[in-house]
Amino acid sequence: MHELGVVYRNIRRADGDIATRLGELGSATVHEAMGRMGLMKPYMRPIYAGAQASGTAVTVLLHPGDNWMLHVAAEQIRPGDVVVAAVTADCTDGYFGDLIATSFKARGARALVIDAGVRDVRVLTGMPFPVWSKAISAKGTVKSTLGSVNVPVVCAGALVTPGDVIVADDDGVVVVPAALAQKTLAAAVARGANEGEKRAKLASGVLGLDMYNMRGPLEKAGLKYID
Amino acid sequence: MHELGVVYRNIRRADGDIATRLGELGSATVHEAMGRMGLMKPYMRPIYAGAQASGTAVTVLLHPGDNWMLHVAAEQIRPGDVVVAAVTADCTDGYFGDLIATSFKARGARALVIDAGVRDVRVLTGMPFPVWSKAISAKGTVKSTLGSVNVPVVCAGALVTPGDVIVADDDGVVVVPAALAQKTLAAAVARGANEGEKRAKLASGVLGLDMYNMRGPLEKAGLKYID
Amino acid sequence: MHELGVVYRNIRRADGDIATRLGELGSATVHEAMGRMGLMKPYMRPIYAGAQASGTAVTVLLHPGDNWMLHVAAEQIRPGDVVVAAVTADCTDGYFGDLIATSFKARGARALVIDAGVRDVRVLTGMPFPVWSKAISAKGTVKSTLGSVNVPVVCAGALVTPGDVIVADDDGVVVVPAALAQKTLAAAVARGANEGEKRAKLASGVLGLDMYNMRGPLEKAGLKYID
Amino acid sequence: MHELGVVYRNIRRADGDIATRLGELGSATVHEAMGRMGLMKPYMRPIYAGAQASGTAVTVLLHPGDNWMLHVAAEQIRPGDVVVAAVTADCTDGYFGDLIATSFKARGARALVIDAGVRDVRVLTGMPFPVWSKAISAKGTVKSTLGSVNVPVVCAGALVTPGDVIVADDDGVVVVPAALAQKTLAAAVARGANEGEKRAKLASGVLGLDMYNMRGPLEKAGLKYID
Amino acid sequence: MHELGVVYRNIRRADGDIATRLGELGSATVHEAMGRMGLMKPYMRPIYAGAQASGTAVTVLLHPGDNWMLHVAAEQIRPGDVVVAAVTADCTDGYFGDLIATSFKARGARALVIDAGVRDVRVLTGMPFPVWSKAISAKGTVKSTLGSVNVPVVCAGALVTPGDVIVADDDGVVVVPAALAQKTLAAAVARGANEGEKRAKLASGVLGLDMYNMRGPLEKAGLKYID
Amino acid sequence: MHELGVVYRNIRRADGDIATRLGELGSATVHEAMGRMGLMKPYMRPIYAGAQASGTAVTVLLHPGDNWMLHVAAEQIRPGDVVVAAVTADCTDGYFGDLIATSFKARGARALVIDAGVRDVRVLTGMPFPVWSKAISAKGTVKSTLGSVNVPVVCAGALVTPGDVIVADDDGVVVVPAALAQKTLAAAVARGANEGEKRAKLASGVLGLDMYNMRGPLEKAGLKYID
Repeated sequence: MHELGVVYRNIRRADGDIATRLGELGSATVHEAMGRMGLMKPYMRPIYAGAQASGTAVTVLLHPGDNWMLHVAAEQIRPGDVVVAAVTADCTDGYFGDLIATSFKARGARALVIDAGVRDVRVLTGMPFPVWSKAISAKGTVKSTLGSVNVPVVCAGALVTPGDVIVADDDGVVVVPAALAQKTLAAAVARGANEGEKRAKLASGVLGLDMYNMRGPLEKAGLKYID
Repeated sequence: MHELGVVYRNIRRADGDIATRLGELGSATVHEAMGRMGLMKPYMRPIYAGAQASGTAVTVLLHPGDNWMLHVAAEQIRPGDVVVAAVTADCTDGYFGDLIATSFKARGARALVIDAGVRDVRVLTGMPFPVWSKAISAKGTVKSTLGSVNVPVVCAGALVTPGDVIVADDDGVVVVPAALAQKTLAAAVARGANEGEKRAKLASGVLGLDMYNMRGPLEKAGLKYID
Repeated sequence: MHELGVVYRNIRRADGDIATRLGELGSATVHEAMGRMGLMKPYMRPIYAGAQASGTAVTVLLHPGDNWMLHVAAEQIRPGDVVVAAVTADCTDGYFGDLIATSFKARGARALVIDAGVRDVRVLTGMPFPVWSKAISAKGTVKSTLGSVNVPVVCAGALVTPGDVIVADDDGVVVVPAALAQKTLAAAVARGANEGEKRAKLASGVLGLDMYNMRGPLEKAGLKYID
Repeated sequence: MHELGVVYRNIRRADGDIATRLGELGSATVHEAMGRMGLMKPYMRPIYAGAQASGTAVTVLLHPGDNWMLHVAAEQIRPGDVVVAAVTADCTDGYFGDLIATSFKARGARALVIDAGVRDVRVLTGMPFPVWSKAISAKGTVKSTLGSVNVPVVCAGALVTPGDVIVADDDGVVVVPAALAQKTLAAAVARGANEGEKRAKLASGVLGLDMYNMRGPLEKAGLKYID
Repeated sequence: MHELGVVYRNIRRADGDIATRLGELGSATVHEAMGRMGLMKPYMRPIYAGAQASGTAVTVLLHPGDNWMLHVAAEQIRPGDVVVAAVTADCTDGYFGDLIATSFKARGARALVIDAGVRDVRVLTGMPFPVWSKAISAKGTVKSTLGSVNVPVVCAGALVTPGDVIVADDDGVVVVPAALAQKTLAAAVARGANEGEKRAKLASGVLGLDMYNMRGPLEKAGLKYID
Repeated sequence: MHELGVVYRNIRRADGDIATRLGELGSATVHEAMGRMGLMKPYMRPIYAGAQASGTAVTVLLHPGDNWMLHVAAEQIRPGDVVVAAVTADCTDGYFGDLIATSFKARGARALVIDAGVRDVRVLTGMPFPVWSKAISAKGTVKSTLGSVNVPVVCAGALVTPGDVIVADDDGVVVVPAALAQKTLAAAVARGANEGEKRAKLASGVLGLDMYNMRGPLEKAGLKYID
């Protein structure tokens, strides 16, 4: 996180299929499967409702008001990547618009996750190119200071190492370390396994109190019912 | 508000029809009819545009990061209720997802109002099950500490007593004490009575200055026009 | 900004056609053409996705919780105007609803930009009458204290002089001083001129690094690639 | 909370001695003794470091930007009271300055707790008259709209009923319902009883792990030590 | 506000004696005398308690993370000035430290008011050199982009024209337009005139209700006392 | 960052003398020497003015509202350490008070840096035991869920690896990776070397414009002076 002016060209990406399957399970399930770790701050929101993406992280470290390194990052994108951009200080400027989005998309990027602002959101929505960001702002940026590409970054409170799996949807953005991707997928699949059955029971009127056998523990904890 | 570990099973609910009719009038009109009292803080937002709900309050007091009592609350829901959840400290965790929503809906709940976060918003939107919340977050919760059900709570700055009427839509969430529901409905209906006529006049180009006879009071207050 | 209780009836509006054309170019392009000046704070958001408007500013200075002057402002609206409302202290109350919107629309207003709250957003969305605001709130306002109309105001951090051009869309709200409107339009048109060509190149896989000739400057700045 | 324009002259105050003793124990200890309930939001801060006060609540409900009712409240103050002021909408205006403070002090008030702003803080600090507030602001207020005195209010997220005990210091503001004051005092005294002994042990190097017998539970919970 | 890269050397400063006397009256009194206009947002706080300053404004427009123009501004300072620094986008970086403070002080500046961050606050406090800022941050800035000096700026929500009077203390920062300085002083002096007498009355137990003859208006407004 | 329930007993600490010397240079100088990296968010504030500390990091990962691991961390403290506590979700509870502070101090800890709340600040100030935190809150915490000790954590936006150097003072909190400590000290000493000389020059009235030879670059960048 402390290197400036470097671009790592060869990063070890998590398996692409695993990334795709984690995305299908969704950020909430994956986050649970991770032991409730790795979630970015909830101020990170998709620019349009229903946005969904997952992939392997190409990271970018930017300076406030300077998007030069996004162009450098574009060259490092491979199909299936999600670009994750951190900034060295709080900033809401619109670092990313439809032109860079066109370039990212042409390179195979599936999404951008940026701890700052974006613009041209109507066009991005139409493409569609999903973005999760802290802000939306028409304010553009300069291209004058070096940052880095593919170094570990802290984005919206979460550490992202290049090649990690990113899962993003309406509920937020989760980071799965590459080394834990396989194991997390297994845990997430197991979690989701009997959700259908549970849903059917609950829909029929069965209470979670009974389905999860909570009455005993609640009584033991001292819960009192008053008529 | 200071009892923990209790569930009140018998609460006096406001009349369901009145709750429904207040909902049709909308939060802005009802809030005016209440003398501009009872509105939750404007950070409470619906998870999808156009959400609308009204009903009688079943209240829940939760601890940060712990949604155990939502399951206890489910059993207390009757058709026409709106669950109102307060937390003992600021928290944005995702307390509520599609499984509990399925259960709440099966019990007849019309909506959830929660001073914290929710998740699975895409599924909730599709059901649809309307939720007004402070945040959206994939972060799940544990089930380990007792709170209470159907005690008075402070939710997003507003006191909610079990059985109060809750009116929620795009403009926010209003609490109408059960004892004031009838009177508030009458006042709200009266307020809405000639809105159609006013709208037609304004649409035809008549100014509010003239329609509301404001020119005199403005002049008296000292307003000066400069050409 | 320091006059209270006055209404200026004759203001010098920027050219309406220029305002319209600036609106078509969008807030991001116009903001760039202005040298990245004149943008309101990014907390100003449209009440519905896809909202777009531009026009000449009629300004209003309001007191917290008091919307009296919006009625006074209505009379000063001419077709093609955008009403810009500032408040003398932070306030999130819902100053503006469907009735005043009907009146503003009948007078020819294209939009409202308000550094406070609005309500009746579902109806406003349906009309449609676009509004950019800091908040949405059911809380109404009183009509008891004089503010001013068509005085310079600071709205969401930007100085707005009556008659300035306002350009608002999903990316934010930009203020173009009337005296700079012509020149800004020329600069904005020039900026947009070869965007289509650039977009096509980027879509074909050409990198911004090459299209903008950045490799030399980046090397000179010391960027290092590590395999 | 829904009455406007009323002043209750006869309220049942908690015992003054109990209020004083609770104040000596401090907000943190009292809050624990309450089962961790009744704390106002942590944005409530004293205007000077080291401020401490406790007493019985005289409550005031104010409108945004209007401090008229503070004058009405002054007459209801008895020696040993703490005035608690809530506002019907978010506001940071400076409602309270050195003149009203002089009056409050002459009436025997020990402090003000206000979910809004204050001013003249240098003079207040010199008097000293302690205030806990959300903001400090030079912006004054008008005197034009009726609120209420001695009705239940929600202040900074906590319900305050007239006569409740207020305990305020550097750590925050806690509300103890009058009916629970005696019992809370007993619990708080018990909590504080062996703190001196504990402190001495910890100061001598004994670990909390041992003093509180945590090693067993931690091991049982699965804690692993890695060398 | 829309000129970049310019320094106005000759500005018309308000009278220095008036600035000094306004400072003695304090921001709260001056703000009232201005008709409650011209106050910066209350997030502007002094870096140490008890800070007080007033003077004539030298303005600076800065870019995010770039303090180059503070050096340019230093040359334009005359004894009795207060430097007012605005930034073109939200930024909390530490633009100002003890070295520039030494320079500003040597030039006769009385204070800095900056809508961003400062650092070296311990040294600044010791000098003492008073600063009102939005943040404190160790993060330094670069010197690469031109802003302007002595152009009108919007600082923390208030318009500041070079030469205006700035009054800053614990209660906040007020801007008095040069043209209104004389008149504002007269009004402020008048306001303060009988404050001593009022204070003595209130201290003796006289109520504001009686001293200000509020009982009649309150009764007329409908206030009810309930025993 | 993704391990829960583990305590690393043997960490490689940066050299203690270097940590001490970095502390003497201060957070602003060290942050510059690091290339402006490694600063925690500016919301991290000392609990009393003038607090200063530096040392080697013992890290703790906590859950919202649960301070159990602080007791586990106490045992891992060696003289010269600074405890750095991160939380898995936003929380303002008061995790740390005078009893744990007594224990930490007895073990040789120099300070606590916590991305959450603390309490007993009056006692902590008197000890003195310096703390940098996001909030102050009387709200206590439970002891029921395992976190970890001495794993890498993200605290207030900065990655902290156990053994890193922490430099904290009024200007904020900077993290220096252990591997960069020596080099950063050299750079920081070099930066501070001629500050005294510069300060003397500036105090004598020499302008930064001349001392730093900025006139040429400013002219080249296009700065215009207007009389």
